[in-house]
Amino acid sequence: MTLPAGVVCLTTDFGLEDSYVGTMKGVILRIAPEARLVDLTHQITPQDVLEASLVLEGAYRFFPRGTVHLAVVDPGVGSVRRPIVVRSEDYYFVGPDNGLFTRIFRDESECEVFEIRDERYTLPAVSDTFHGRDIFAPVAAFLLQGVPADEFGPRVADPVSLSLPTARYGSTRVVGEVVYVDSFGNVITNIAREDLERHLGSRSFLISLNGRSIDRIHRTYLEQELGKTLALWGSSDLLEIAVAGGRADRRIGAGKGDTVLIEIGS
Amino acid sequence: MTLPAGVVCLTTDFGLEDSYVGTMKGVILRIAPEARLVDLTHQITPQDVLEASLVLEGAYRFFPRGTVHLAVVDPGVGSVRRPIVVRSEDYYFVGPDNGLFTRIFRDESECEVFEIRDERYTLPAVSDTFHGRDIFAPVAAFLLQGVPADEFGPRVADPVSLSLPTARYGSTRVVGEVVYVDSFGNVITNIAREDLERHLGSRSFLISLNGRSIDRIHRTYLEQELGKTLALWGSSDLLEIAVAGGRADRRIGAGKGDTVLIEIGS
Amino acid sequence: MTLPAGVVCLTTDFGLEDSYVGTMKGVILRIAPEARLVDLTHQITPQDVLEASLVLEGAYRFFPRGTVHLAVVDPGVGSVRRPIVVRSEDYYFVGPDNGLFTRIFRDESECEVFEIRDERYTLPAVSDTFHGRDIFAPVAAFLLQGVPADEFGPRVADPVSLSLPTARYGSTRVVGEVVYVDSFGNVITNIAREDLERHLGSRSFLISLNGRSIDRIHRTYLEQELGKTLALWGSSDLLEIAVAGGRADRRIGAGKGDTVLIEIGS
Repeated sequence: MTLPAGVVCLTTDFGLEDSYVGTMKGVILRIAPEARLVDLTHQITPQDVLEASLVLEGAYRFFPRGTVHLAVVDPGVGSVRRPIVVRSEDYYFVGPDNGLFTRIFRDESECEVFEIRDERYTLPAVSDTFHGRDIFAPVAAFLLQGVPADEFGPRVADPVSLSLPTARYGSTRVVGEVVYVDSFGNVITNIAREDLERHLGSRSFLISLNGRSIDRIHRTYLEQELGKTLALWGSSDLLEIAVAGGRADRRIGAGKGDTVLIEIGS
Repeated sequence: MTLPAGVVCLTTDFGLEDSYVGTMKGVILRIAPEARLVDLTHQITPQDVLEASLVLEGAYRFFPRGTVHLAVVDPGVGSVRRPIVVRSEDYYFVGPDNGLFTRIFRDESECEVFEIRDERYTLPAVSDTFHGRDIFAPVAAFLLQGVPADEFGPRVADPVSLSLPTARYGSTRVVGEVVYVDSFGNVITNIAREDLERHLGSRSFLISLNGRSIDRIHRTYLEQELGKTLALWGSSDLLEIAVAGGRADRRIGAGKGDTVLIEIGS
Repeated sequence: MTLPAGVVCLTTDFGLEDSYVGTMKGVILRIAPEARLVDLTHQITPQDVLEASLVLEGAYRFFPRGTVHLAVVDPGVGSVRRPIVVRSEDYYFVGPDNGLFTRIFRDESECEVFEIRDERYTLPAVSDTFHGRDIFAPVAAFLLQGVPADEFGPRVADPVSLSLPTARYGSTRVVGEVVYVDSFGNVITNIAREDLERHLGSRSFLISLNGRSIDRIHRTYLEQELGKTLALWGSSDLLEIAVAGGRADRRIGAGKGDTVLIEIGS
């Protein structure tokens, strides 16, 4: 178990137009004046818990051990969903118990989960609409200040896990789907490099997405002619469909949930 | 009086596309290397001093005591409007004297205001178009470095206060208006919870906005059916009109300045 | 030569929607826990190396001496272009050797350039698509930790310099061009105050851009009637065409690369 390292990394769907994120940071610094605050992103698609889970998974291990990952994508704010603290071997996670940490539970072997109940660690007046400010920010700050995770409330044995879209690996084909489109228009699938390479071995293959077919995986965007579609392994080692110097999402008309098919040859 | 706490909170209408905000931060760190910088928002509607005043009011008290709130929404940059430092009991404010701090003057009983005149505390060459970088950022940094507020220049007895849109509480009705629309499309009015609850007592009421009528105030977004309009108390305890799982601004066609009417029953 | 001062200033074309920038910051803090991170902007026009060069030039000197400027606008990621560290008298620059630092080489007399080769200073697994995370962020952090610039790899004698659009000063006219349009719609040219004033002396002039003519240079936006076009010296002392209270880019239909002509009278 690693102690909190002084860093809070924030992930929300609040956007940067309003003062919501800034206000959370003010609350953190009031309690933990030495906190170092980093934004992962505040532009998660509104209320898209699964997307937030994917974005977190791709990034959290690049942070210092002991980082507190504060994540608020919370369509159920003010309802009965539990606010939780998660302690894994090397990281802490704070947010609503709505599946946001599904991929953390899957990836990290030793997760302990605690419900936030102790009112000493939340703001005196908790609103019904902004738990990011009133509950999650102060709890992240108190973690930095040395409050142990199990002091916020009772252990949770059954934290919410969502069913994740996973690729199916068959003898003649692999069926995956688009799970994210980044701001460059790159189309990211749930087909992981390690899994596909092991499954394919030296066999040939044909990747299809919305009528486009691709028969090889390039190493970089530059290996393809400008304007042409290509496949490559993205920065999280997931299969990515891109257009050299362009936007694949628009060119192919592809979006989240679209099926990616890989037919296996000989 | 609280001494500056090492935190500068920035609020501007500069956006994040250009390098203006980053440059201000560079200037602050040059003078105060230990400064902790937090963005409240840089997406105030361009030149909307009243909106900035409202956003500041909703957030400033969540920051550590001694925070320097640096706010630049400055349609009069380069003209005769004064640059000022405001010292309240617990906070400092730096920006143009154009009404940006109207709500601070109203909310904080003991504000002292000083005009920034001493050229030792501004950049050597002050441009006519970017006082955020050349005057306000260095002054915020020198406050952190221990320069007392009254050393920047002479006391200002008559800082600019704008007339604020306030709700009118009559015997048969309350007339307020929309003062902000957040990035989720929630429509925020100038009707404060404390005022309305005291005025209404146990009487019934009917809220109207652009032809929609609402006869109760919900606690959370989730208590209403998806897609339906509701009223609730937002995170600043102002009456808010929302659509469950949607955007109220588009559904109702509501925007800043629209009248909100509350008819009082028996 | 100034030692690194603990500040990393980031400039990219990654935007803030995805987690790319946040992940780079995580990597930096893992290696240099005391790093102070400032965003210059992450909204450089995608892959526009020249624009990034201009934005950097306008801002880098406002940062503390010893700041590490980490800049990633990198259309050639994964190809043979070299990753470099630049050491000037007062600053450090880290990024791809693709011309991003052209204006730094021009402005700073004593630049030493080193290719990043030593794998001790990059992440263990370097991807082909995200050198910002895998090479440039760790190198910036190791600079803060005291690794000398010349330890990352061999000296580069011929770093890439792009040809910059420079204004031509003739006896009867000056021909410049639009090099940037800021988020307020102000149209910024490559005509520098010092150069033009020296060239013109006391002669009269007429500025033309897309059919608009302007015969004087105002000091501030406010000196012109609302809605009218004006010229002024912007915050980087470059000639700027603006519209009082409006957007010059839309009003004039002006964009990057458009010619600005100044006819010289008597």
